[in-house]
Amino acid sequence: MEELLRPGERVDDLQRKGYRIIQNGRLFCFGMDAVLLAAFAGVKRGERMLDLGTGTGVIPILLEARTEGAFFAGLEICEASADMAGRSVKLNGLEDKISIIRGDIREADRIFPPASFDVVTSNPPYMTASHGLVNPNPEVAAARHEILCTLEDVVSQAARLLKPRGRFYMVHRPFRMAEIIRTLGKYRLEPKRLRLVYPFADKEPNMLLVECLLDGRPRVKVEPPLIIYEKPGVYTREVRELYNMQIQAGKAVQEE
Amino acid sequence: MEELLRPGERVDDLQRKGYRIIQNGRLFCFGMDAVLLAAFAGVKRGERMLDLGTGTGVIPILLEARTEGAFFAGLEICEASADMAGRSVKLNGLEDKISIIRGDIREADRIFPPASFDVVTSNPPYMTASHGLVNPNPEVAAARHEILCTLEDVVSQAARLLKPRGRFYMVHRPFRMAEIIRTLGKYRLEPKRLRLVYPFADKEPNMLLVECLLDGRPRVKVEPPLIIYEKPGVYTREVRELYNMQIQAGKAVQEE
Repeated sequence: MEELLRPGERVDDLQRKGYRIIQNGRLFCFGMDAVLLAAFAGVKRGERMLDLGTGTGVIPILLEARTEGAFFAGLEICEASADMAGRSVKLNGLEDKISIIRGDIREADRIFPPASFDVVTSNPPYMTASHGLVNPNPEVAAARHEILCTLEDVVSQAARLLKPRGRFYMVHRPFRMAEIIRTLGKYRLEPKRLRLVYPFADKEPNMLLVECLLDGRPRVKVEPPLIIYEKPGVYTREVRELYNMQIQAGKAVQEE
Repeated sequence: MEELLRPGERVDDLQRKGYRIIQNGRLFCFGMDAVLLAAFAGVKRGERMLDLGTGTGVIPILLEARTEGAFFAGLEICEASADMAGRSVKLNGLEDKISIIRGDIREADRIFPPASFDVVTSNPPYMTASHGLVNPNPEVAAARHEILCTLEDVVSQAARLLKPRGRFYMVHRPFRMAEIIRTLGKYRLEPKRLRLVYPFADKEPNMLLVECLLDGRPRVKVEPPLIIYEKPGVYTREVRELYNMQIQAGKAVQEE
């Protein structure tokens, strides 16, 4: 295993099929957002999926573990992250099922053939360039702020890469919900399932999970609230089950 | 009081400033939807508000009771409802503050001058003409199904009647959320506050409350969940407080 690790990297156990993942505290580490998206997304037997902006590769790896999909791809612009994600794939012996490709989301339709995936997922940067402080580390900044790609870039590429009636899954911030729904609509992605994630039962939601169907008809199922904490420091049963199923509780680092 | 009542009508106490309201079980009676919308909507001192499709007139009456608005109007196409709402206004001696006008929402911009209200509210029909069974009573049917006006009619008229930076408040069903947000956007109404109403903490939401700002910039505050029941038959504290403040618990009749 040592030959797959670089200085400053650690290996975390994904609590699923014995899978592990390489992370580096100086780069962007995956948060609860990615875990919730991987649990929310569905990949059916034999389907092909692509994760836009895959970072550590956690979403394709978790989806390979949980589903019977045939092929999983992750596109990542940051060289260090793409390299690390590729080594996580090797570490788990998944080179036949998962491909990590280094490339720009804005060019995804030139990297992959159009209409070639059944499922596209994304945990994109949440903040526009004008929202809040930008992290001094350019890789962390690009994962949080729309520096290298905008919401519209992600959505438009997802729509181009999906087969007819393909599905797009995204996690994002609720404060951008109206823009998100309009942008999805502009690219014929119709929201069919939507779930709000509330840190506590009496607090505002801080995440939004959405499933869209390319050329679906307008009718969205808004699901029961997903509450994270019963009380400070204690996860609700739903979240405990989800983490036991998928991954040991990691630190949610993607905060505004 | 008797001269204001017609056969088959009853008078309900609104538990607020001694106000009462006339209802008729054969027509459309107001539900929790209207009460929640009146609690969610804000009317500031001196503002002018209009309720599109006012039915019994409950929304203007509750908002007159709760706020310091200068003028409240209710537009209603159904003659029997408009007449009854007008008598409720008289019953409370509010003729100087509240006007009930009989007319068609689709012609609202010919009935009222454009850009003449600070606030527009609406509890419109939730179902398209193709959704579910249509009530045999044409007045009840028109309140539930988009027979006499569509979502787009309501939203487009609201936008025309609002002053610059005016606010539009609506209650609707979550399954139409994506359409609602796109239609609002088409008429420059930007969602700024959104709240989902869940019958129980672990169930899907069945109502959506939204506040929009004409020409607002895109950023929406999604509020904490509004949960109706603690357990079957027992309202949560928030709902009990809201009803004590506004109105004795009525039967929610506007069900799909």
